[in-house]
Amino acid sequence: MQIPILVDEASAVGLQDQIFDQIHTLILDGRLPAGSALPASRSLARDLGVSRNTVLGAYQRLAEQGLVRTREQAGTYVAPHQHALGPRHALHTPDDPQDAQDDLGAALQRRLRFRSRPHRVLSPHPVPPHYDFWIGQVDPRLYPTRAWRTLIARMLAAPAEPLCRYGDPQGLPQLRAAIAAYVGAARGIATDASRVLITNGIQEGLSLLARLLVRPGVEVALEDPCYRGASSVFADHGARLCPVPVDGDGIDPAALPPSAALVYATPSHQYPMGATLSLARREALLAWGRRAGAYIVEDDYDSDFYYDEAPLPALRSDDRHDQVIYLGTFSKCLGAGLRLGYMILPRRLVGPARAAKALLSNCQPWLDQAALAAFVAEGDHAHHLRQLRRICAARRDHLRAAIAHQFPGARVAGAHSGMHLAVHLPPLMPGAQQIEPAARRAGVGVYGVESANAQLFDARRSGALDRFLLFGYAALDETAISEAILALRRTIDTLR
Amino acid sequence: MQIPILVDEASAVGLQDQIFDQIHTLILDGRLPAGSALPASRSLARDLGVSRNTVLGAYQRLAEQGLVRTREQAGTYVAPHQHALGPRHALHTPDDPQDAQDDLGAALQRRLRFRSRPHRVLSPHPVPPHYDFWIGQVDPRLYPTRAWRTLIARMLAAPAEPLCRYGDPQGLPQLRAAIAAYVGAARGIATDASRVLITNGIQEGLSLLARLLVRPGVEVALEDPCYRGASSVFADHGARLCPVPVDGDGIDPAALPPSAALVYATPSHQYPMGATLSLARREALLAWGRRAGAYIVEDDYDSDFYYDEAPLPALRSDDRHDQVIYLGTFSKCLGAGLRLGYMILPRRLVGPARAAKALLSNCQPWLDQAALAAFVAEGDHAHHLRQLRRICAARRDHLRAAIAHQFPGARVAGAHSGMHLAVHLPPLMPGAQQIEPAARRAGVGVYGVESANAQLFDARRSGALDRFLLFGYAALDETAISEAILALRRTIDTLR
Repeated sequence: MQIPILVDEASAVGLQDQIFDQIHTLILDGRLPAGSALPASRSLARDLGVSRNTVLGAYQRLAEQGLVRTREQAGTYVAPHQHALGPRHALHTPDDPQDAQDDLGAALQRRLRFRSRPHRVLSPHPVPPHYDFWIGQVDPRLYPTRAWRTLIARMLAAPAEPLCRYGDPQGLPQLRAAIAAYVGAARGIATDASRVLITNGIQEGLSLLARLLVRPGVEVALEDPCYRGASSVFADHGARLCPVPVDGDGIDPAALPPSAALVYATPSHQYPMGATLSLARREALLAWGRRAGAYIVEDDYDSDFYYDEAPLPALRSDDRHDQVIYLGTFSKCLGAGLRLGYMILPRRLVGPARAAKALLSNCQPWLDQAALAAFVAEGDHAHHLRQLRRICAARRDHLRAAIAHQFPGARVAGAHSGMHLAVHLPPLMPGAQQIEPAARRAGVGVYGVESANAQLFDARRSGALDRFLLFGYAALDETAISEAILALRRTIDTLR
Repeated sequence: MQIPILVDEASAVGLQDQIFDQIHTLILDGRLPAGSALPASRSLARDLGVSRNTVLGAYQRLAEQGLVRTREQAGTYVAPHQHALGPRHALHTPDDPQDAQDDLGAALQRRLRFRSRPHRVLSPHPVPPHYDFWIGQVDPRLYPTRAWRTLIARMLAAPAEPLCRYGDPQGLPQLRAAIAAYVGAARGIATDASRVLITNGIQEGLSLLARLLVRPGVEVALEDPCYRGASSVFADHGARLCPVPVDGDGIDPAALPPSAALVYATPSHQYPMGATLSLARREALLAWGRRAGAYIVEDDYDSDFYYDEAPLPALRSDDRHDQVIYLGTFSKCLGAGLRLGYMILPRRLVGPARAAKALLSNCQPWLDQAALAAFVAEGDHAHHLRQLRRICAARRDHLRAAIAHQFPGARVAGAHSGMHLAVHLPPLMPGAQQIEPAARRAGVGVYGVESANAQLFDARRSGALDRFLLFGYAALDETAISEAILALRRTIDTLR
């Protein structure tokens, strides 16, 4: 049983209240009639990415109001109607204007096109902890402020034409050309501006792909666990999600269903577990795509960050059949507030994707695109990346040393590249679910797999994955890292 | 018979070639099997917003290749298969690698989720005419360049935090507060920041609404003719479009279908005909919404532009049942390259719209939002609007005088507000379809109803509507207007 619920982490309203309110409305509107089963608390909690206690608390309050009943072994059901509608009908006659307004409200509420699958909104946490190892967070102190100000001022010194006109739905041509040259040099992708489409971050790229390629019931294969922004947007378009387990070599192509229309993967640094797809599996993934006649979506979200050796080229660079869709972003190397991502598209997708973007929002705003085009084309970007890599490598080394010092026996994975690493906790330490809230009370944000905006599909693996803690290190300097890891050790000591 | 075709005006490929290529692929891929009927040329031309000759030309070339056959009285059909597949199958054996690649391409092509209804991409014309009366075009020389540069520099002088972080999916709180205050003063809408959602232009607002409220088969009522960006996005989500004729008092609520889930309207300045919805019809429209349990989408795209007297407040200001969704934009008073629009939402839509925006693209970029918030809150916006209105009023007066002088007998409608007016041509003058291409050859862009990004639903009215020419006047100064109208008269003289 699926019910249409949305929860919004950044809302001032608590998660339990949001769940309670929405089920309450569904029952009073008659969209959940008497006798309907509510979803099992465990499965609803998983879909929404909230704790099971949050869901149980909401169910409990619904039961206290007489709206639902819980039967042993059989789950939670909507109670008979006289209970549900009693109070309101006792207060108003049908001719009461207040009631007419309520009826209109209920009618309008029914017009909402709810999704079959609940999902959680991806919002920044309203009050970040003092030391925050949130993944993908970049350090504002490293922003190339001076170069950026100069470029923005230069763009605004020219006549205001491009501020006043609709731009190309595919994106500013200069920026597309600069990106094509950049991914050629940095990621081995032979392409040109005609294949690049500028998006409002990778999230919009995923949304456009879902719109173009997913119909209700279409199978979409994903890594388990995977980035929740991807699984949510495919589910939102009605996809049947087919999770494929990841291990130390990334996603296992042997486990991909032959009937999937596309697979979403993060080959260079698996989100969130940090693995790099092995060479053998890259080959197997491409071969699977050819056999299945499927698209392969390569989300290369943090590939600008590599340290010890040059990274493998993008999967797209090995794509001889034009079936890999490459997603890149400037959210990590510059900042998410720019909202500038891009896709490198197979030839046959360019026209449809351009048309979809035009229909969706006409085009991206001009100013940041223009400044970024010059930033990339004139070499500022390459310079900035070299500096970023040097600083982030030092932070990573510092974090690794601090972890080794404070938590002997912890194993670190995914540290060769990216902006976060995964720590496999030693056997006697408490798990991530226990550490996370205690650390937060001590001012340290560390994240278990599910808290890090990752969707976990196979509940049987949640115990094993609870043994991992994830640390995004790009936004914290060495001093902060030392202080945070010390505070974390002390916190964990109190838990044993 | 609907077939999945997209045409893109800004493409380097001609419209006829685009139509030919796509039908060609549909037939070779087997998605249009032998015996399928192609749509009637007239209806496909209308859906795509192209001339009927363009479609006939594409059909003719398909017939020449033996792919389709035209039967008298019965339309155009896909020819039997041996003709269609002959050449390719004769060249390659099934084991040929080229062929395997082609098969993969065909498989991937089938994965595309085509819409049931063809649509046309809304792109700026690649080469605008010398004097362009394009509607909604703002004059870059009137952009408040100095104030804008100062504000942008001020925003970038602060620490780079907001450039680096994801913002609120609902939009920058300061900007939402500034907009709430502005629409209160300017449009009589009592609201606050919690009801405002920032969008990437009105087009994204329409797209979000379609996502929330439209399921395949849901009825959406629209003005006939209406803004094509709206009809396309609703059709793209599977809506059944219910056109309602407009006259000199705007849309006629008596003709609204009781079963529609929403109506899309432009009450203050009908797009493209220029009428203002009469007071009686405003009441009737709201009453219809209550009876039908439907949402009313009020697109107030150019209401910042009014001249002779203060405008009526927004329809939303009279909405006592929280059923009007208000759409506004800064594309006209500042520029479309900013991509900043907004919605004022009914309470029950705020959460779902915010969640949909988060899933779609996380949030709007920060910099332009921040500068705009200060621009509006600190009074620059009000000052700029007063100046704009003064200048546009003079241009409108000048245009009206030039038209009266060069085309005695022409009647002008929609001049009281907005950025364009509609000219009802005198009886002996040729129609818009004849004038438009000749004027363009003479360097003057004037637009008939369908060329102005408007969708005309009732083909029986196309003759009557061909008697109207539309003139956007905000981007041309008085000298240019005089020269353009003189050139236009000389052009029309050669046509008689």
